[in-house]
Amino acid sequence: MAIKPRTLSGFMELLPAPQVQMERIMEILRKTYSLYGFTPLDTPAIESAEVLLAKGGGETEKQIYRFQKGDSDLALRFDLTVPLAKYVALHYGELSFPFRRYQIGKVYRGERAQRGRFREFYQADIDIIGDGKLDIVNEAEIPSIIYKTFTALGLKRFQIRVNNRKVLSGFYQSLGLEGQSGDIMRTVDKLEKIGPEKVGEILTEDLGLSGEQAKAILDFMAITGTNQEVLAALEGYRGRSALLDQGLEELSAVTRYLAAFGVPQENFAVDLTIARGLDYYTGTVYETQMLDHPEIGSICSGGRYDNLAEYYIEKQLPGVGISIGLTRLFYVLGEQGLLNDSLNTAPADALILPMTQDLTSAIQLATRLREQGIRTQLYCEQKKFKAKMSYADKLGIPYALFLGEDEIAANACSVKDMRTGEQQMVSVEEAAGLIRQGLDARGEGTVIVER
Amino acid sequence: MAIKPRTLSGFMELLPAPQVQMERIMEILRKTYSLYGFTPLDTPAIESAEVLLAKGGGETEKQIYRFQKGDSDLALRFDLTVPLAKYVALHYGELSFPFRRYQIGKVYRGERAQRGRFREFYQADIDIIGDGKLDIVNEAEIPSIIYKTFTALGLKRFQIRVNNRKVLSGFYQSLGLEGQSGDIMRTVDKLEKIGPEKVGEILTEDLGLSGEQAKAILDFMAITGTNQEVLAALEGYRGRSALLDQGLEELSAVTRYLAAFGVPQENFAVDLTIARGLDYYTGTVYETQMLDHPEIGSICSGGRYDNLAEYYIEKQLPGVGISIGLTRLFYVLGEQGLLNDSLNTAPADALILPMTQDLTSAIQLATRLREQGIRTQLYCEQKKFKAKMSYADKLGIPYALFLGEDEIAANACSVKDMRTGEQQMVSVEEAAGLIRQGLDARGEGTVIVER
Repeated sequence: MAIKPRTLSGFMELLPAPQVQMERIMEILRKTYSLYGFTPLDTPAIESAEVLLAKGGGETEKQIYRFQKGDSDLALRFDLTVPLAKYVALHYGELSFPFRRYQIGKVYRGERAQRGRFREFYQADIDIIGDGKLDIVNEAEIPSIIYKTFTALGLKRFQIRVNNRKVLSGFYQSLGLEGQSGDIMRTVDKLEKIGPEKVGEILTEDLGLSGEQAKAILDFMAITGTNQEVLAALEGYRGRSALLDQGLEELSAVTRYLAAFGVPQENFAVDLTIARGLDYYTGTVYETQMLDHPEIGSICSGGRYDNLAEYYIEKQLPGVGISIGLTRLFYVLGEQGLLNDSLNTAPADALILPMTQDLTSAIQLATRLREQGIRTQLYCEQKKFKAKMSYADKLGIPYALFLGEDEIAANACSVKDMRTGEQQMVSVEEAAGLIRQGLDARGEGTVIVER
Repeated sequence: MAIKPRTLSGFMELLPAPQVQMERIMEILRKTYSLYGFTPLDTPAIESAEVLLAKGGGETEKQIYRFQKGDSDLALRFDLTVPLAKYVALHYGELSFPFRRYQIGKVYRGERAQRGRFREFYQADIDIIGDGKLDIVNEAEIPSIIYKTFTALGLKRFQIRVNNRKVLSGFYQSLGLEGQSGDIMRTVDKLEKIGPEKVGEILTEDLGLSGEQAKAILDFMAITGTNQEVLAALEGYRGRSALLDQGLEELSAVTRYLAAFGVPQENFAVDLTIARGLDYYTGTVYETQMLDHPEIGSICSGGRYDNLAEYYIEKQLPGVGISIGLTRLFYVLGEQGLLNDSLNTAPADALILPMTQDLTSAIQLATRLREQGIRTQLYCEQKKFKAKMSYADKLGIPYALFLGEDEIAANACSVKDMRTGEQQMVSVEEAAGLIRQGLDARGEGTVIVER
């Protein structure tokens, strides 16, 4: 022993039981995304730095893992969107549009290490890319998939907040403030944190807006209510700017379609304070909040963009996408105690303990159970009985199966339910039935449980 | 457009259809490994260079992606075994032994780029780690899982070749050549390539063995036949070295158990020429050949080791493991035309083409099909009918569904089988039944088909 084993800080490494929960979540994401006609994609974690940083600059650049190998300038991907842009540009001729893909993969950002922040983390993205055009219905379908996904995971108290950048930009235009949209949005973004008064101060004192302009903005941002009420209030702004009108049309359409997609009113809200970054999104934008944990911020964000791959190809490729920060979400769910610990996280459903020297019968029993889809482990180590039972117990393996001379002679096995302690000698068929019934009962429930 | 999009050479990036095939293979690996009671693990792709290179030196060191970030000396993992060793040492107190884990993950080696060699590639590993001891039955179970896995994938013409390092070392000991085991094994490894005569020359001329020693080695390596015949011939060597005798016991036990695990004779062979590396493996070793493509080399290798984590922890942790080089295997299968192209690789099973302005009915239809588990895409782009059909066609989507005024009025939809061209107007339930029946028929067959 020379080197102290350690895992880098900011890198999630789970113990087996939580890892099983994580795998279950990923499996549900894959299944749900697939149901909506998205194809899985897998791109390299390493790209040429030139390609990855084609867009250049930005806050992320400092965080990027960039290094030389031979004379190649390489970098680890920091999101899944830039690799998607590269992929679509590179394989443009071989793809059919709209191109719908999901990707669940690790991305890397050398952020300052702090609790709950990760340097390596999974993103789970869906995007729909059009060639030239993309229908507005896609902008409603994307959040409806997120609704389905979170619901399948067991999450209930969440809200997808929807806005439209055209509404915001159009509104600022109507105030003669188009040049300052960015600064204003950044300021308005602080509304929840610092309150309208402070925001008003910054708008007038720092950004030099008139009192009327500031008041108009604060009034606009104060529009709340049901989705119908917010949209109705927005109708009052119609006619002031063509861009605002177009945004309003889109926002209304998205709201209408979201209902058609079966997303309940309580799970989505038109929220005029949502702006999402600055230069990338051009239409609908999304954020998703856990209603009981607003402090966590958005667990799933995205929006509509007009030109996915402009740095790589002279094609107009509009799209809409959304991303779940999976590693962080998983961390938060664990911290909040929202992961369902009653679901089976054992490596096996059944542990076979042979009681004879010859293992042939035990191996045959294992094979038969596995053929029935029961995850089965043979335990053949030379240990005391107590140690074997403690092994099954610690791992939470639901059933222990004993196979001694008596059982072999009777073409049977003894099955012990590790939870109740009940033990019975039954045929292999009965054992399989018993175990499957028990597993079905234990398998009920979702990965996430809100209390 | 400023930057030419490209993917680094040596990095696999698949188009959607082959990606689906790759995903299917991974799914089968996950399922099969799970059936045998292995728990999934996921460790960071980046580790501290000090930890990753604890063992130091070796041929891989030059190939490692190593870089600084801040003042950290980091490296990308080059296999999944070193991270496993670190994991087990780090979490020793929280794990139960035997610890059985599988891991499917990307690893990185900056090899010289050449066709079919990858710098980023998936390994799919299973390992069983004991604490202090590990029963020999595990050394038979591991290749039996590989047999099950390859069979589930559809591979038939493969052979798992099994040997035992103790048999080899014991035999060289009995010739008074223990100090030269390494050199001899490396030479004997060339038998298939250069033939026994040349090997004999190197043994005598370069390594300075006597003619008798060389002859003894060549005679030993010439032992072939059925597994029973090889083991019987080996019995003739019993008594010459305690180590050889022990190896022979183990090899006989593994052979016996492999049969009990249901691995047919034609899929495994005791092969005395298999040696696998030099310092790591201490007992049973495996290689796997595709019988019709010996030029590919081993597609799955591994073996028994006595001390997994000696660089990190003062515990004796013997183990046995095996690794599939998944990216390379996938590449080879594709090159050889062994991937089954008749399986559905479309992103969706059904494409809904709404024929009305209002999309409510189309969205409802999509929702109902998805509830039935049918992967459904809504196609709402403003395109000519022909373009829409060509989209379904290019993607290989099996069914197109039309929803016009007539269908909506009749509470029905028109289903077109894209392969036969047959179209019929049916109820949604009938449509779902029809599609599922068709998918079941198309879903038959394995991922790999040998011709």
